[in-house]
Amino acid sequence: MTDRRQFRDLASPAEARDAIESLDLSPDDETVPLDEARGRVLAERIDATLDVPGFDRASVDGYAVRAADTFGADEADPVVLDQVGTVHAGAEPDVEVTEGTCAEISTGAVMPPGADAVVMVERTDEVDAGIAIRTSVAPGDRVMVAGADVAAGSRALGPGTLLTPREIGLLSALGIDAVPVRGTPTVGIVSTGDELVRPGDDLNSDAGQIYDVNSYTIAAGVEEAGGEAVLYPHAGDDYDEMERLLVEAADECDLVLSSGSTSASAVDVIYRVIEEEGELLLHGVSVKPGKPMLVGRLGEARDASHSAYIGLPGYPVSALTIFRTFVAPAIRSAAGLPAPQTATVEGTMAVQERYSEGRTRLMPVGLVDDGAGETLVYPVDKGSGATTSLVEADGVVEVDADTEYLAEGETVTVQLFSPDVRAPTLFGVGEDDPALSRLIDHVERPRYLDVGSRQGRRRLRDGVPDVAVVSGPSDREVDAVDLGGWTREWGLIVPAGNPDDIEGLADLVDRDLRFINRAMDSGLRASLDAALDDVAADRDADRRDLTDAIDGYGLTVKGFESPARKVLAGDAAAGLGLRATADALDCEFVSLGTESVRVLANPERTDKPGVESLRSVLDTHLDDTVASLAGFDA
Amino acid sequence: MTDRRQFRDLASPAEARDAIESLDLSPDDETVPLDEARGRVLAERIDATLDVPGFDRASVDGYAVRAADTFGADEADPVVLDQVGTVHAGAEPDVEVTEGTCAEISTGAVMPPGADAVVMVERTDEVDAGIAIRTSVAPGDRVMVAGADVAAGSRALGPGTLLTPREIGLLSALGIDAVPVRGTPTVGIVSTGDELVRPGDDLNSDAGQIYDVNSYTIAAGVEEAGGEAVLYPHAGDDYDEMERLLVEAADECDLVLSSGSTSASAVDVIYRVIEEEGELLLHGVSVKPGKPMLVGRLGEARDASHSAYIGLPGYPVSALTIFRTFVAPAIRSAAGLPAPQTATVEGTMAVQERYSEGRTRLMPVGLVDDGAGETLVYPVDKGSGATTSLVEADGVVEVDADTEYLAEGETVTVQLFSPDVRAPTLFGVGEDDPALSRLIDHVERPRYLDVGSRQGRRRLRDGVPDVAVVSGPSDREVDAVDLGGWTREWGLIVPAGNPDDIEGLADLVDRDLRFINRAMDSGLRASLDAALDDVAADRDADRRDLTDAIDGYGLTVKGFESPARKVLAGDAAAGLGLRATADALDCEFVSLGTESVRVLANPERTDKPGVESLRSVLDTHLDDTVASLAGFDA
Repeated sequence: MTDRRQFRDLASPAEARDAIESLDLSPDDETVPLDEARGRVLAERIDATLDVPGFDRASVDGYAVRAADTFGADEADPVVLDQVGTVHAGAEPDVEVTEGTCAEISTGAVMPPGADAVVMVERTDEVDAGIAIRTSVAPGDRVMVAGADVAAGSRALGPGTLLTPREIGLLSALGIDAVPVRGTPTVGIVSTGDELVRPGDDLNSDAGQIYDVNSYTIAAGVEEAGGEAVLYPHAGDDYDEMERLLVEAADECDLVLSSGSTSASAVDVIYRVIEEEGELLLHGVSVKPGKPMLVGRLGEARDASHSAYIGLPGYPVSALTIFRTFVAPAIRSAAGLPAPQTATVEGTMAVQERYSEGRTRLMPVGLVDDGAGETLVYPVDKGSGATTSLVEADGVVEVDADTEYLAEGETVTVQLFSPDVRAPTLFGVGEDDPALSRLIDHVERPRYLDVGSRQGRRRLRDGVPDVAVVSGPSDREVDAVDLGGWTREWGLIVPAGNPDDIEGLADLVDRDLRFINRAMDSGLRASLDAALDDVAADRDADRRDLTDAIDGYGLTVKGFESPARKVLAGDAAAGLGLRATADALDCEFVSLGTESVRVLANPERTDKPGVESLRSVLDTHLDDTVASLAGFDA
Repeated sequence: MTDRRQFRDLASPAEARDAIESLDLSPDDETVPLDEARGRVLAERIDATLDVPGFDRASVDGYAVRAADTFGADEADPVVLDQVGTVHAGAEPDVEVTEGTCAEISTGAVMPPGADAVVMVERTDEVDAGIAIRTSVAPGDRVMVAGADVAAGSRALGPGTLLTPREIGLLSALGIDAVPVRGTPTVGIVSTGDELVRPGDDLNSDAGQIYDVNSYTIAAGVEEAGGEAVLYPHAGDDYDEMERLLVEAADECDLVLSSGSTSASAVDVIYRVIEEEGELLLHGVSVKPGKPMLVGRLGEARDASHSAYIGLPGYPVSALTIFRTFVAPAIRSAAGLPAPQTATVEGTMAVQERYSEGRTRLMPVGLVDDGAGETLVYPVDKGSGATTSLVEADGVVEVDADTEYLAEGETVTVQLFSPDVRAPTLFGVGEDDPALSRLIDHVERPRYLDVGSRQGRRRLRDGVPDVAVVSGPSDREVDAVDLGGWTREWGLIVPAGNPDDIEGLADLVDRDLRFINRAMDSGLRASLDAALDDVAADRDADRRDLTDAIDGYGLTVKGFESPARKVLAGDAAAGLGLRATADALDCEFVSLGTESVRVLANPERTDKPGVESLRSVLDTHLDDTVASLAGFDA
């Protein structure tokens, strides 16, 4: 624990941006085929080298004529011309139009010699003597002259132009099949930390292993920013291995990102590698989260190509936030890409948020559409170790170091995690329930946070969510519109065969059986406590006496399936849960009753499309859904 | 010309959308590796199958303790515990914490048996007797319990979720390395028309050949909409070839688009193929442009797989407009993708626009930022044959069939050609000039339309563009801020060696020499006419007499290089142009004078960033630019 570096002199966010701007991560320009050019950025100006069209062309189907021959013609008194031939698109005319004659011509065909106008077919008739022309035309009518669209020598597209379908259309018209574009920055990602395992591999939780979240998350972010991500094998905290991987990545990439390790010792190892194999420009930024960010260059000490280097924090939300705020703009700029249009949205704070830590804060927030055109913004603070904040937050609000609080109703700018992120159509909170999670599959882009029934009621009262789903007894009344609900059977989940012969709560109180409970916010827990009150009343005892006697009453777990999984794993004799869960996981079930689950809507949001959608899903899918779950009833 | 089908009973746009919705172009779901999942859409709900974290973990670096041992400890009066071991992240603890002891622990490491809290390292010191703990902690402090982030069995992501970096992060945390996603619709593109040549191949303009614009444009649009484009070899107007290609494409793709041909006879051929090889649901839509759109199914007549079919109009702007309006939404929907957020922008009409044709109109428009936060919208109508409207327009405004006009200042919704499209930073109009086209290379995302000096003055007066660039004499005054300018030497461009010994304008008047002029809007043309006035005055003649005597005075071409190119091609003895052009194209030059080119800014837009940028480019790059061009001077 000695010799650990402390980040005492933290750089400001502006200094961090300057340090990153001083890095060179621009790749060389390259030439790509036109059919792979979409989304790329022109490296050079493109001038037209030919006229478009390259010849005088008919702009309608009809007859090529000498305009002078049509003077005076009209519907009633047509001029009849002698048809001397036909000109098709894509063919060289083999006919000349002389006085008193015409040639049939297709749209886009070359004007035959002698002709100076086209009469559209709708104004003509075939008659015995030839072609009756029923209108008079002027020279140039229905003819597009050579170069009228694009003149040879003119500036077609400027350097730095983002190539969308329309630019690709103009380049096609100019006959260009390969275009000089800005190169794609290659970004190497080295994840570090002895505890990390690649998704798909087996995990040993007893040895503290966790899946590597940052590698794929940041790789996706790199590609969204216009870079090409290169994933390197995961490095442990060993100096030599880390050095070998970082130098290899520096040799092959324009930018190397390290990420993954949350422990200070691993950060120390990286720090030493950068100092010895390159140059460290900055360590530590006065921003929360993200303090341990590193900026530097790598590979300069060796006689090889080198690259820019940025070290990201280890926690996924911190890593993605720092990536989005500091790194993605640098990658976009190296690729020549403009900032995406939807990178930010404006919203109003749904609640007051206090803060005073003397560092710029990148506060993770969620978005709610209030149904009246306003976007509400609420802080999501689950601690940086939680990966679920990745999907529960939509972006960050940058709060100045000297801002003490954001007031409710204050306008803030949210930097979205990705340009594609948008507010969910429905924002629900409350009880964790298997019927609910199936029902919201039918709603487009919902967000549901299983914070429990008690928290659900509290948050609905505060006016942030659209709906709260609650179960179990409560003495808290909330002003809401009841959209419907169902009942579910709850009780004790025990191993198959019920080896301990558990018959009810009395067994937990009176015998030495390990129990797994749910947290206070859960509606199931409220039902359990009410049932314990009944037992206590029967025994003329205090509930506290009973709960003290239950081994594990204070051991609470998060999800509705979690107690059953503990029972399955042999860690407990009984767990609080639903008959449906016991059924799904092949456990035995000791019923203790049923409780009602209600879907309560924010009274001001009942017209919001997402709420309407949930209401109609309840109408159409509730019966099927509860029928598929044991112990559920509509 | 007989038997040509006319589209008399046009479907409404709503009927066209219904017909397209009735087609099935959804591919099968598929499974992709996580590192290729960005931008894809989940086909199924993903439930967590494990707890995250999978064990109780330390959330800081520090010491794992029994909380009870720390009660009463503070800065002044620490408790000293005996360190019995160390637990690293990614390792199974080999130590138990008993009363009076502690274990060093890294962030993310497994809590050792016996410990129930972590004291952060900053609140500890190593002392001779052990580890001094300078704070008291409660059970659970700085510990993240198993499943606290994600509980096994909980709903992680719903079906239909678009996978951005944050969702990929959550999937990583769950150890998922392959995800079930909606398939990517494959869209075959068959371009038709005898006159089309693929970009990159040689073009025979005399035979009326043009480059195929639609294939690559629509392919890029397909990919932008989330489909996979498959380009088929270009088909001529021959029935058998078209049938073979369309059936092959139907066999291999979910949707076949035909495009490219503007001639009614080619459309007839496709029409017959669809009727014989599939089913035609709709022909002709009451929308401008896009009347000849076809909707149907292909390949059903054969015992093979079949596909949806949509026939696009032949003109590129029409094709892209119809694609964007009717086809892209169907591809997105088949891919499960939501409509892009930036698909539309609101703006106000910069001018009045009249219309009454009884068809829904998809009016191509350009966008201008007025510098005061408003987006101005102006119609771009160059005729559907012009490919330049692709880049001069930014999108379309849908105007109802019964709307007679859009008023100036009216709010309209613009459907952008692509989500990445945005208003240019600088919108300039006016004279075609080689110095200008180099200077604006230094401005980010400019748009410049070379409509000539006369049109430039007119449009600046109407208040739409930010700047007009004008040259030559004019009797039209315009209220503007002069940002600067340069002079350019103009005259007659003649073949190398000046074979006709042309010395000035008198040669054109008095001798039989073919001349190529510029159009009336050009500043160069105004300078020429002023010089002809001088010759006329010298001869005591009328200018008209002189111009009648010049062979080709009425033959005007578009670009400033175009006359020189005609001279080079042997089509004329002399062309109106600049010394710089003669120089660049190795022609000889007969000087007739110099004219001043001025950059005039809209007085209300001088603070607009794009105008500021142009002003500073004039400061920094004008001298270098004119020095590189013969006959130019600052």
